Amino acid sequence: MNSLQLLKRYQSIRSYTEAIFSPLTIEDYVAQPILEVSPPKWSLGHTTWFFETFVLIPNAKGYQAHNPQYAFLFNSYYNNAGDRVKRHNRGDLTRPTVEEVYTYRKSVDEAMEQFLSHDITGTEKWIELLELGLQHEQQHQELFWTDLKYTFSLNPLDLKYADTLPFEDDYSNDKELEFISMDEGIYTIGYQGDGFCYDNELGVHKVFLHAYEIANRCVTNEEYQEFIEAGAYKDFNLWHDEAWKWVNEHNIKAPLYWEKRDGQWWHYTLRGMQAINPKELVKHISHYEAFAFAQWKGMRLPTEFEWEAAQNRLDWGKLWEHTGSAYLPYPNYEKAAGAVGEYNGKFMINQMVLRGASVISSPGHERYTYRNFFHPWMQWQYSGLRLAR
Amino acid sequence: MNSLQLLKRYQSIRSYTEAIFSPLTIEDYVAQPILEVSPPKWSLGHTTWFFETFVLIPNAKGYQAHNPQYAFLFNSYYNNAGDRVKRHNRGDLTRPTVEEVYTYRKSVDEAMEQFLSHDITGTEKWIELLELGLQHEQQHQELFWTDLKYTFSLNPLDLKYADTLPFEDDYSNDKELEFISMDEGIYTIGYQGDGFCYDNELGVHKVFLHAYEIANRCVTNEEYQEFIEAGAYKDFNLWHDEAWKWVNEHNIKAPLYWEKRDGQWWHYTLRGMQAINPKELVKHISHYEAFAFAQWKGMRLPTEFEWEAAQNRLDWGKLWEHTGSAYLPYPNYEKAAGAVGEYNGKFMINQMVLRGASVISSPGHERYTYRNFFHPWMQWQYSGLRLAR
Amino acid sequence: MNSLQLLKRYQSIRSYTEAIFSPLTIEDYVAQPILEVSPPKWSLGHTTWFFETFVLIPNAKGYQAHNPQYAFLFNSYYNNAGDRVKRHNRGDLTRPTVEEVYTYRKSVDEAMEQFLSHDITGTEKWIELLELGLQHEQQHQELFWTDLKYTFSLNPLDLKYADTLPFEDDYSNDKELEFISMDEGIYTIGYQGDGFCYDNELGVHKVFLHAYEIANRCVTNEEYQEFIEAGAYKDFNLWHDEAWKWVNEHNIKAPLYWEKRDGQWWHYTLRGMQAINPKELVKHISHYEAFAFAQWKGMRLPTEFEWEAAQNRLDWGKLWEHTGSAYLPYPNYEKAAGAVGEYNGKFMINQMVLRGASVISSPGHERYTYRNFFHPWMQWQYSGLRLAR
Amino acid sequence: MNSLQLLKRYQSIRSYTEAIFSPLTIEDYVAQPILEVSPPKWSLGHTTWFFETFVLIPNAKGYQAHNPQYAFLFNSYYNNAGDRVKRHNRGDLTRPTVEEVYTYRKSVDEAMEQFLSHDITGTEKWIELLELGLQHEQQHQELFWTDLKYTFSLNPLDLKYADTLPFEDDYSNDKELEFISMDEGIYTIGYQGDGFCYDNELGVHKVFLHAYEIANRCVTNEEYQEFIEAGAYKDFNLWHDEAWKWVNEHNIKAPLYWEKRDGQWWHYTLRGMQAINPKELVKHISHYEAFAFAQWKGMRLPTEFEWEAAQNRLDWGKLWEHTGSAYLPYPNYEKAAGAVGEYNGKFMINQMVLRGASVISSPGHERYTYRNFFHPWMQWQYSGLRLAR
Repeated sequence: MNSLQLLKRYQSIRSYTEAIFSPLTIEDYVAQPILEVSPPKWSLGHTTWFFETFVLIPNAKGYQAHNPQYAFLFNSYYNNAGDRVKRHNRGDLTRPTVEEVYTYRKSVDEAMEQFLSHDITGTEKWIELLELGLQHEQQHQELFWTDLKYTFSLNPLDLKYADTLPFEDDYSNDKELEFISMDEGIYTIGYQGDGFCYDNELGVHKVFLHAYEIANRCVTNEEYQEFIEAGAYKDFNLWHDEAWKWVNEHNIKAPLYWEKRDGQWWHYTLRGMQAINPKELVKHISHYEAFAFAQWKGMRLPTEFEWEAAQNRLDWGKLWEHTGSAYLPYPNYEKAAGAVGEYNGKFMINQMVLRGASVISSPGHERYTYRNFFHPWMQWQYSGLRLAR
Repeated sequence: MNSLQLLKRYQSIRSYTEAIFSPLTIEDYVAQPILEVSPPKWSLGHTTWFFETFVLIPNAKGYQAHNPQYAFLFNSYYNNAGDRVKRHNRGDLTRPTVEEVYTYRKSVDEAMEQFLSHDITGTEKWIELLELGLQHEQQHQELFWTDLKYTFSLNPLDLKYADTLPFEDDYSNDKELEFISMDEGIYTIGYQGDGFCYDNELGVHKVFLHAYEIANRCVTNEEYQEFIEAGAYKDFNLWHDEAWKWVNEHNIKAPLYWEKRDGQWWHYTLRGMQAINPKELVKHISHYEAFAFAQWKGMRLPTEFEWEAAQNRLDWGKLWEHTGSAYLPYPNYEKAAGAVGEYNGKFMINQMVLRGASVISSPGHERYTYRNFFHPWMQWQYSGLRLAR
Repeated sequence: MNSLQLLKRYQSIRSYTEAIFSPLTIEDYVAQPILEVSPPKWSLGHTTWFFETFVLIPNAKGYQAHNPQYAFLFNSYYNNAGDRVKRHNRGDLTRPTVEEVYTYRKSVDEAMEQFLSHDITGTEKWIELLELGLQHEQQHQELFWTDLKYTFSLNPLDLKYADTLPFEDDYSNDKELEFISMDEGIYTIGYQGDGFCYDNELGVHKVFLHAYEIANRCVTNEEYQEFIEAGAYKDFNLWHDEAWKWVNEHNIKAPLYWEKRDGQWWHYTLRGMQAINPKELVKHISHYEAFAFAQWKGMRLPTEFEWEAAQNRLDWGKLWEHTGSAYLPYPNYEKAAGAVGEYNGKFMINQMVLRGASVISSPGHERYTYRNFFHPWMQWQYSGLRLAR
Repeated sequence: MNSLQLLKRYQSIRSYTEAIFSPLTIEDYVAQPILEVSPPKWSLGHTTWFFETFVLIPNAKGYQAHNPQYAFLFNSYYNNAGDRVKRHNRGDLTRPTVEEVYTYRKSVDEAMEQFLSHDITGTEKWIELLELGLQHEQQHQELFWTDLKYTFSLNPLDLKYADTLPFEDDYSNDKELEFISMDEGIYTIGYQGDGFCYDNELGVHKVFLHAYEIANRCVTNEEYQEFIEAGAYKDFNLWHDEAWKWVNEHNIKAPLYWEKRDGQWWHYTLRGMQAINPKELVKHISHYEAFAFAQWKGMRLPTEFEWEAAQNRLDWGKLWEHTGSAYLPYPNYEKAAGAVGEYNGKFMINQMVLRGASVISSPGHERYTYRNFFHPWMQWQYSGLRLAR
């Protein structure tokens, strides 16, 4: 890529963020109902801070930080980048205002435009960091939807982001459930292209897989309702020990956002409450639930390797799919030095891998080597499951 | 009062609320950093809901609730008035927007104006409720300042409500500390006028007081600094058992908002960080601290009765003053029936009484029979102390 | 008292402790199911430590601590007496063994016997501390029963301390409920005798009381059952705000130890599960419950002053009786210097006074000026209530 | 095995339990200082309950439960076997007494002896359950040491289980640290013998391993001290994100039981406090610490497969060794039906695998396919680490 192409890519991703934020009221930018949800205003500043901190300050001659205190406000979890506001206090910061954060974005965007107006050789080290910043911004675009849905769902006023919203409902899947047979053998895992990937996808390596079968599609609402109606949320034999505590302490009875009204299941969506469509893929389920469902079927979840080996024969890309693999480094995984090394590596414990991509993932994120990861109790992602045996 | 006078009083108090809220940005209306702090938007809706629920709906013929869901959103703690948003979720509600809440206020104000446009006999039962609603709104005006100060203080950007703000700093008190002697005898306690008072001030009764001495003024910053510098926050003998736990668990070293920079004490104010003025009265201290200070001086706090008996000889009205009295009902206290009975009575346990009024109390709230009350660990009020012996 | 009398008194109280502990198994000495309950082994050591620390070490020439580490193990809450095992860790200490603690007792008893074998003038300062130690030991005798009852009640094996136990059941009260009228006037409060009393009873002072009526006896089980059956545990209007949270969070439905089996109320006692006797006085109720009961009756609890003023006309001494008074210092209360000053004073916040004495109080503890105190949610004492109006 | 052999094996394992418990005082049998530690008395009853519930009751004609309430008291976590005492209440049960629990053991042992006095065909289904019960009892023998060490370590009296205790100290390892090279290839994993193994070792399968190197021995105290002295407990870059929180919240500075006195490291052992021996293997470290140490060395932990593939070239068996593998089911793992299926499967989430065996593991437990597992913050096991790269 030359610098003009880079600039265009930068502008396109940055302006898409602003487009999806645009229907928000100013009030919507502030709230942080739970630790995991970031206020939209904070996300806006944080993604900007990333470019300022990792691209402009070290590389753009003469660049002065827009506001030196913003480093404290908008650092997320980079110990190497200094102190920061505690995560649970992000929602307490009424200032800077939304307008000031947009001013910050604009200022950084202008500096980036100037910075990218010169010729480049293509081998500059900051190009990687710029690309990481763009991918990072796209991850926050996805988080924007999941976070907003969570916050809106708590409000008794049945809020809508928009009256119609393609990704919220219309991806039913009429395919018959079939199982694809995969042969025993050695498969190669990990990213081998020359585009962008995260460091956790590197460390290409071989794995031996025994013969297995994997479903052609994810589980549907109608299939999941059978599980509910069979009393699965009351049968301890289906659940992990800690999952069973979770079900009981939080009184879990269905996927997140589901609600039974007059004997019919409804679910909250960003276009308001909707009746459940039986043919759609079930989503907003935790790893615990995905595991219990597979257990109930007498099957199991695929490992991330089985998923990757079979990927070109699967229908995927609508939901993040729970796998049976823990999130651990690949052989020969190498953590980058400094702050960037904190991007992935330090989370490789007590989380499970999800594969695929979801309807709200930004374009370019449907990479079959992508390793997403969440704690096993988390439901607020667009996450579903696929069976294996 | 005739209805025109009532209307004027209503309008004057309501518009004062809007005046003091006016410098806020929209973002400032949303945050709830701790349980005890209400988002300004919520206060605005809640005070409006009070008039709608207790005056308009039962009394204004044909009045329809502006939005029936607001009863759920803006009820604070009245079990008799139905279910409500949990207190810790008030900050999660990005909607209704600030504008919508102002529309709600305007709509209720118009209905109140119409309601008050007819002649009244002066004996209508709702007049008391209207007056309670106005006093309640004024209490929220005071809470507005205390809450905002708390929220702003958490922000690293050294926020200011205004560049100058008389009540934040300029009430130094140069009077020599003197002790007023009060005679042993029977004193009458409680509100005996014919104006407004809260139900907790009624139940006029007699108390016997032994001879005592009470300070002419509250303790100053300079006097309090001596206490700090004498190591009082490290001397368990000065503190209640539970206070000592509080000091250690929360690492308390000074009044709230105080901060030591280069050997000099500063404190956060709504006009920004300021150096401590030695002659000002110390404020933002908890009951625990007030008690420990008096202990250190070899004195004690006055009881609320001692305070009331001596009130016309004291210089008071700048701070809520901690007393040595627990918040309990007066003899013959009678709880009102229904929701209004929840205003005070159900909090008469495990709290301590504060007397006086503060620089941020609304006009008309400097009533010497007024019984304010807080948990003994709370510092976020404009609270100080006066010595007795 | 001469030294021989002191010695006899010492021996009599110490041996009574051992007598009531004697039916325990060694296992019973160890457990601490909740923070408030002390393991019997710890109580045994702690009461011994009191004499060693406050009488022997400062006064008995040449006395050497039995085991210097015991000061760390058996100090309860005296900051002035040095560091100590955390309260919640008392049940973790399997050693010293029960036998070793009895050896410690015996060793201290022998040293005390020797110490008391010399003539005394009667004005020695340690005499007061010795007496305080004896009163303290008697308080632990009472705690022994309350703690043991709590621990045994958790065990599914329906444990019994003994097959018959007079204090557990047979104090029914057939008296008609009557109200005694008391005149308005000035009454004198506080201990005026020349025997022992705690420092919190001193500071004799006058109070003015308005005319009031006070019940001749405490409330019975049968009267309390009516309250339960009227749905009182579900009616928020009867409860303090924090009491209502307590009822709901802990799912309180009746006094502690009550259990409904086949429509009949039973309660756990130290002689096993027993059917409720309607004529007995209701016990094991918290201040919250006592308050709610009085509220339901349209009456109130007496203040501690009303109780003391009327005491010689009341039938009391079977239960600690909840009052409407907070536990605060009397006017002119003076905290003793050093460790002894921590006995009472530092707890004078957020607790309520109970008056009287209970069937398990040790002889000599039925002093009408006695001020017992507990947090308002505590039920595990032998506590009941008397109505006033 | 014929029934006589089975009987001998049963008696030998059961009597070994009693032998290692014999130095305890009765008090030692009762305490449960943390959730994870079971009181010795409970372990004694629980292992007995296992044989009664899974062998005698279903198979021994005419056998009557020794005490039907014991099923409630001594069930650990088997939902299929009914309700049970909550785990955190085990230490509250002073009864049954130690003597009664030994009577229970004796009674079950006699019934087992009678049951095993008849000829068997060798194909009886209960033989597997008997064997599982024996393995289970041996696991509790190991837990006995780890739990007792933890409880004793909290006691300020420097308790000793015995004056000499071979396993506590004398396994220094003078070997030079060397790395064994392992070839790339397909390896077979899982138990293939015909003796006993747990269900989690079954599901023999192949894995592909890239070439790797693995240390010939575990890390020593002296090597670990370098890590401490290099400031590792203060360098966030070495730790997982959640590990870093753990280090700071719990103020972790060294392995469990280590204490610095006058510049020298000591550690608590079951024969009392001992100076650290530099040549011994470091133990009582969590997975977090093992990971951070490897990170600091620029290496990593071996996976459980790498460990198993290399096992016959390693010096192992003194400590449980942390691996880089999450505890997940093997391909084709099948959970047994009913209560026995709860033995392992339901814990296969959020835990990490440890391989090897420790100096306190019972004979017969040094099986190279054995998969032990703990949460990554747990230190109280005899756990160490081996490097790989």
